[in-house]
Amino acid sequence: MGKTAINGLPKTYYYYPLLVAVVGINTGKKKNLIPVVWHTALSFTPPLYAVSISPKRFSFKLILEAQAFSINFLSYEYMDLVDKLGSVSGRDVDKFSEFNLKYFIGECCEAPVLEDAYLTLECKLVDHLKTGDHTLFIGEVMRTYIEEDAFLKDSTLNTDRLDALLYLGNHIYITTDKTRRKSKKS
Amino acid sequence: MGKTAINGLPKTYYYYPLLVAVVGINTGKKKNLIPVVWHTALSFTPPLYAVSISPKRFSFKLILEAQAFSINFLSYEYMDLVDKLGSVSGRDVDKFSEFNLKYFIGECCEAPVLEDAYLTLECKLVDHLKTGDHTLFIGEVMRTYIEEDAFLKDSTLNTDRLDALLYLGNHIYITTDKTRRKSKKS
Repeated sequence: MGKTAINGLPKTYYYYPLLVAVVGINTGKKKNLIPVVWHTALSFTPPLYAVSISPKRFSFKLILEAQAFSINFLSYEYMDLVDKLGSVSGRDVDKFSEFNLKYFIGECCEAPVLEDAYLTLECKLVDHLKTGDHTLFIGEVMRTYIEEDAFLKDSTLNTDRLDALLYLGNHIYITTDKTRRKSKKS
Repeated sequence: MGKTAINGLPKTYYYYPLLVAVVGINTGKKKNLIPVVWHTALSFTPPLYAVSISPKRFSFKLILEAQAFSINFLSYEYMDLVDKLGSVSGRDVDKFSEFNLKYFIGECCEAPVLEDAYLTLECKLVDHLKTGDHTLFIGEVMRTYIEEDAFLKDSTLNTDRLDALLYLGNHIYITTDKTRRKSKKS
């Protein structure tokens, strides 16, 4: 073992792979989609889910305006779409029409729910917090949309039927190896 | 596609797999380790990294006391250890001696750095925020320890040499399929 110590944390992909999520926003006047990997659950009760977004992003103001957002999880086969969604700005194009995306407007918060997502969390914005050069948007999950086939009875992803989309950084994607799914339950 | 809509978000593993991290804490009097999957980067400048922990956990008070923590990333081969680390409480056992773990005390914040981790982020606690039934501990990464062999030149994980440890929920672990690493860089 040969460890190297570095001051601070340079801008790297060391702590990847991370599960990709596509944040959807609808202000009524504008809709947009932005892929993210800096996201996490924050609470079971109430169910809170948070996403970290830079103020440089077009979606930043849109979320504040909409006061809601959706988190859409797409499978590995959508990596081209996801990479393109991250490579253009909603300032320049309507990504929904540009990429011919099917969606419906969510039942609780009017956030876009992607038809091709195996899981969508529709969130009402409950707080936002400036953290360095990003802002953490905290949503309460009001409605969850699932493809039931995507999950096993214990609610874990059915990796025989569906490949999760993981991001390694630098436009590189990967998925899980279903032959190495191991249960440690005693 | 047949979507099912659910009110709120039940306690499930729908939004997994997630990369496992082992949080290390050292108050001077007590040391502990706790595996987590609710964690995310929050900023490049300054480098901020956050971890969500329930107040029921022994580590909760320890972090507040230590005002620092480490985030240790272990590879897939350590799944047994990680599962055990999550199955016992630091109230009952000293996990470092129980599991015979090699570590050193970090240079900036005296947080434990696991020798077997391919990446450790040593963080100074800069904020904490109650979010529902968990608390988000926000750390500034003061020091990063890496195994250089673990990463390629573009800082992405070298999946030919190292298998990331992903958690599917319900004590089930998985890793990536290196044969499906795809670059979308144009």
